[in-house]
Amino acid sequence: MNFRSDNCYGIAPEISAAVQAANKGTDSSYGDDRVTARLQARFSEIFERDVHVYAVISGTAANALALATLVPSHGAILCHTGSHIAVDECGAVELFTHGAKLVGLEGANGKLTPAIVEAALARFEKGSVHHPQPSAISITQATEVGTVYRREEIAALSKIARANGMKLQMDGARFANALASLACAPADVTWRAGVDVLSFGATKNGAMGAEAVVFFAKDDVRDFEYRRKKSGHLMSKMRFVSAQLEAYLHDRLWLKLASRANAFAAQLAEGLAGVSGANLAHPVEANEVLVHLPDETVARLRKAGADFYDWEPPKAGSTLIRLVTSFATPAEDVANFIRIAKG
Amino acid sequence: MNFRSDNCYGIAPEISAAVQAANKGTDSSYGDDRVTARLQARFSEIFERDVHVYAVISGTAANALALATLVPSHGAILCHTGSHIAVDECGAVELFTHGAKLVGLEGANGKLTPAIVEAALARFEKGSVHHPQPSAISITQATEVGTVYRREEIAALSKIARANGMKLQMDGARFANALASLACAPADVTWRAGVDVLSFGATKNGAMGAEAVVFFAKDDVRDFEYRRKKSGHLMSKMRFVSAQLEAYLHDRLWLKLASRANAFAAQLAEGLAGVSGANLAHPVEANEVLVHLPDETVARLRKAGADFYDWEPPKAGSTLIRLVTSFATPAEDVANFIRIAKG
Amino acid sequence: MNFRSDNCYGIAPEISAAVQAANKGTDSSYGDDRVTARLQARFSEIFERDVHVYAVISGTAANALALATLVPSHGAILCHTGSHIAVDECGAVELFTHGAKLVGLEGANGKLTPAIVEAALARFEKGSVHHPQPSAISITQATEVGTVYRREEIAALSKIARANGMKLQMDGARFANALASLACAPADVTWRAGVDVLSFGATKNGAMGAEAVVFFAKDDVRDFEYRRKKSGHLMSKMRFVSAQLEAYLHDRLWLKLASRANAFAAQLAEGLAGVSGANLAHPVEANEVLVHLPDETVARLRKAGADFYDWEPPKAGSTLIRLVTSFATPAEDVANFIRIAKG
Amino acid sequence: MNFRSDNCYGIAPEISAAVQAANKGTDSSYGDDRVTARLQARFSEIFERDVHVYAVISGTAANALALATLVPSHGAILCHTGSHIAVDECGAVELFTHGAKLVGLEGANGKLTPAIVEAALARFEKGSVHHPQPSAISITQATEVGTVYRREEIAALSKIARANGMKLQMDGARFANALASLACAPADVTWRAGVDVLSFGATKNGAMGAEAVVFFAKDDVRDFEYRRKKSGHLMSKMRFVSAQLEAYLHDRLWLKLASRANAFAAQLAEGLAGVSGANLAHPVEANEVLVHLPDETVARLRKAGADFYDWEPPKAGSTLIRLVTSFATPAEDVANFIRIAKG
Repeated sequence: MNFRSDNCYGIAPEISAAVQAANKGTDSSYGDDRVTARLQARFSEIFERDVHVYAVISGTAANALALATLVPSHGAILCHTGSHIAVDECGAVELFTHGAKLVGLEGANGKLTPAIVEAALARFEKGSVHHPQPSAISITQATEVGTVYRREEIAALSKIARANGMKLQMDGARFANALASLACAPADVTWRAGVDVLSFGATKNGAMGAEAVVFFAKDDVRDFEYRRKKSGHLMSKMRFVSAQLEAYLHDRLWLKLASRANAFAAQLAEGLAGVSGANLAHPVEANEVLVHLPDETVARLRKAGADFYDWEPPKAGSTLIRLVTSFATPAEDVANFIRIAKG
Repeated sequence: MNFRSDNCYGIAPEISAAVQAANKGTDSSYGDDRVTARLQARFSEIFERDVHVYAVISGTAANALALATLVPSHGAILCHTGSHIAVDECGAVELFTHGAKLVGLEGANGKLTPAIVEAALARFEKGSVHHPQPSAISITQATEVGTVYRREEIAALSKIARANGMKLQMDGARFANALASLACAPADVTWRAGVDVLSFGATKNGAMGAEAVVFFAKDDVRDFEYRRKKSGHLMSKMRFVSAQLEAYLHDRLWLKLASRANAFAAQLAEGLAGVSGANLAHPVEANEVLVHLPDETVARLRKAGADFYDWEPPKAGSTLIRLVTSFATPAEDVANFIRIAKG
Repeated sequence: MNFRSDNCYGIAPEISAAVQAANKGTDSSYGDDRVTARLQARFSEIFERDVHVYAVISGTAANALALATLVPSHGAILCHTGSHIAVDECGAVELFTHGAKLVGLEGANGKLTPAIVEAALARFEKGSVHHPQPSAISITQATEVGTVYRREEIAALSKIARANGMKLQMDGARFANALASLACAPADVTWRAGVDVLSFGATKNGAMGAEAVVFFAKDDVRDFEYRRKKSGHLMSKMRFVSAQLEAYLHDRLWLKLASRANAFAAQLAEGLAGVSGANLAHPVEANEVLVHLPDETVARLRKAGADFYDWEPPKAGSTLIRLVTSFATPAEDVANFIRIAKG
Repeated sequence: MNFRSDNCYGIAPEISAAVQAANKGTDSSYGDDRVTARLQARFSEIFERDVHVYAVISGTAANALALATLVPSHGAILCHTGSHIAVDECGAVELFTHGAKLVGLEGANGKLTPAIVEAALARFEKGSVHHPQPSAISITQATEVGTVYRREEIAALSKIARANGMKLQMDGARFANALASLACAPADVTWRAGVDVLSFGATKNGAMGAEAVVFFAKDDVRDFEYRRKKSGHLMSKMRFVSAQLEAYLHDRLWLKLASRANAFAAQLAEGLAGVSGANLAHPVEANEVLVHLPDETVARLRKAGADFYDWEPPKAGSTLIRLVTSFATPAEDVANFIRIAKG
């Protein structure tokens, strides 16, 4: 019963097969291969616009390279206090930007709002060399606590970004889960809503190690390709990364996998509703469930072999835990977890 | 007839199978998995010493992270003018070290010698804050021109390094090819000869994207693991990288693959000896052949579909080209190339 | 009536004279001169311990170089949300540390407390490569709001720092003002209280441009001298910076100047107590007065030529303003300011 | 007899007086003061064009900040092997550019030529992410060996720079000496000859610590001001730096001081021509004399108290020494030096 992370699960069979299929003959290295060439068109089709796509092998690299491309060393990046870039990437963005400042902002359900951003902006004096200059907003879709931004919410943040000369970056490590939840077009919650660059995650949702940085305007690409190379993130046998992404996008695989993971999370949420003392911390909109459970329930689940994170230290007899579901989560694990939780 | 780079070839079947085999059930992410755990012992066995091994996905990352761990921002790194870190990595080492200086040194057959290093050291005033301080020697094994350092050559460089408080790093992107050529123990040309850290390449020799940074002393590891994470090089599904390395080392696969590639290079060298106007630029000791060919021969080969690099612009009717062979090079390609070259 | 900043005032006559006196004959450059050589002993005498002193020309350089010497790129630095390094230095510390994270913490009267620091530490998982590792506490003495840490307060923070393997850095841009206020020995509120490195400011208190980074243990100096040079902060004619510091320390000049500035602040605080609607925001312990004044009072003062900062935007008819006094503030300016404020 | 460096001499009386004169009343800090405001017009007048001037306190800061503003992290900077940025600044440019590559090129008399630059450019593949991209040429005026670029020489380099999308930076630590030697307008050897940015040195020629970065086009300034602040190089009491520069430029002081220093160098060169075994290494065109002297002559001079650098280790009974003259060099020191050299 592994609910620790979607990263703990493996590779979707279709993606694994695509990697093997790409293992034929020779091709150019460092991204000049035929598979990679096809990605550009494939992503453009999916996003209904000419996009500029660059594959890397980790979400940290995707976020840090994208933000470093758009934010100067003297810039500031507004993000949620709980965002991955602020908490879980060991300061990668600060390294790649050469010292830009991440400004962590509190917000309900893992989200930023226009009011939150505007309050933060008031703290920085525009044009003063003494203050880092707000240069980007970074949002996470789906958020770290399993909620999902609506297109209007994104558009509202984008409006502030534009009005203040800032870019809007989306950390989409779980973008597929968000999209499956929203059931809208990829374009609707990205460039149509004002997103400038997207870290399009595939690894957590069935790839081996493949993320795509998607720029929606050519001008924003700037020196991204040099940055990717200079940081060691340009794979020599790139075709095997690109093959993962191609398979991921083929025949809506990405959305099918994400829908499966989301459904498990919904089942967990529904099932846990019937557990005495259980309290959902946030709406369950993607593939994560953050739930307060009585400590004895937590102990019982762990004893039965369930693996998951304590999101916060125990408090007053209850602990906030995080459950993450995967396309590959066994259905019986979900059922068993609920059963054991019910005691 | 692809002799452009070993990077143009794919994945060895045994390695591909190992990746699929690792795709079962769940495991911990970010390198806390069981496959990665086994690597430590496996590498220690092969190097006859407790080594400290960290997987990354590119040679550039391996070199830059290893050197940044050992060389301060005010340091200088002595390397061959033609080395990959100096020429082909877009200044990755300079980025990761935050501005250390690569000092490129000329040397016959792609190699540094004690005399070359000592002459360079004389240019830096020890302890002066005005001058970058020589902190490491970086050598490439096999070299960029297909030659191989002997253990005595390495030991002699190590002696100077130690005498001057410098570390000795080995870029082993083609370490297997060098070792297959030398037919000695891995330890003999690494730690026993005074190498402090090795970029152990697997990608060029049959992996999909897997390199290992091997430290031979625990103290040298320092903050390497933080550096790897902070630069986005810690894969979440690390087990699939580690599985490649495990298969690569199993049953001497790495040496078998390299021997096959080396043999093709030897055949090319031998065959080209019979070509009118052909002149080998360097001894052929690994899987690369640098050869001067008459421009008409070059043109004939290209017309017949042979793919390779011009190493230098044409001069006086002749061009220095580079031919790289792979474990997966078709044997008939080698024969055909020689036949066509002979005209 | 300039109460905008102590930086708006000039050079103390004694310091100006010392610079001229140093302008005789030749001396070695880049800090190898005789004046600089004397500083080491002078500072050691004043701090009652062998200290290691390095002059720079700005407080930003002092803080950023000192912290970068002690904090790795993957480190985190705990500081007050209102601290100069967090707010007013454009992310210099983040640049010089190559991406360490400043963790801004709220605290009454501009101060950190053990409880605040401990709560923050709980958010970082020790030894996890995913999280920046808390490596230093930075405190400001006197604080940005004109309060002063007591020796016991510093010692308590130091205890936590040591228990967690962190260094304690003190931004002493207004160290003289703090010391004049505390009337204790310099050692008492620095190394005896567990401070590892001090940015010893002189510029705000009568120097032209001279700050000293004071390390209390030789081991902590590490590669500071290379960092100073590499960042362009090693002055060629260093003797003129050192001469400022020497004069500053001579015959207790630094404390006399600071006492004078502090006394003006005390007079302001006392005088404003009699102003209708005036409310001191913090105890006035050094040379800064943060006071809420009715907007009409603020307007009247400005109309009369008083210059000062709005510390916060006006709210409910009142504005929090900051008044900074200098050794060179004309006594009549203080009297006039109070008189006008009284209306 | 101090011929070690012009840095060993002090402050010109006019400059010292200007610093004292600026020490009156209050003024805005961080460069918003009246003296600094006047500099812009003053420099524009001298350069016959609207220039953009920013003061810093060291030549290393001037060079590194200017180049970092114009050269991306993936860039390369072509410079002479003997240039200050390549040899004497501990890799400051590499730090400030976040890892750009300095490409040191050999050239007679400390100079680059079009042929040298073009040969170097051929080694970099334009647009390839694997290679640092040549982004600037840096030349030193006067050079490190006391020669001076003619306007045609500069214009020829500028032509190549422009043709290749590169900027032309001039390290003018001894710009006054060069100009006094050329007896032309400042504009002629800067923007009219295609120089994009100039490090305008004053420290070596009589200032206490003052250099100006002069941009000749507004677009090139980019984020320079943020870079200056973020690196700790924005002085709070800037007026005292600006006052030095103002005095330096007043009534042609800078050229008078430089002419005096140059004249001493010319006297040395002429006098040493009569010394047995003496050989000038380069034309003496500014305030430096590089001369081969018999070792016994060198020893005799040192014994008599002369201070100077060995530029190279002794070889075959002779040593290449460097003599630097200053506006403040005592005339009798020059005479004595020659007399003693003659034996």
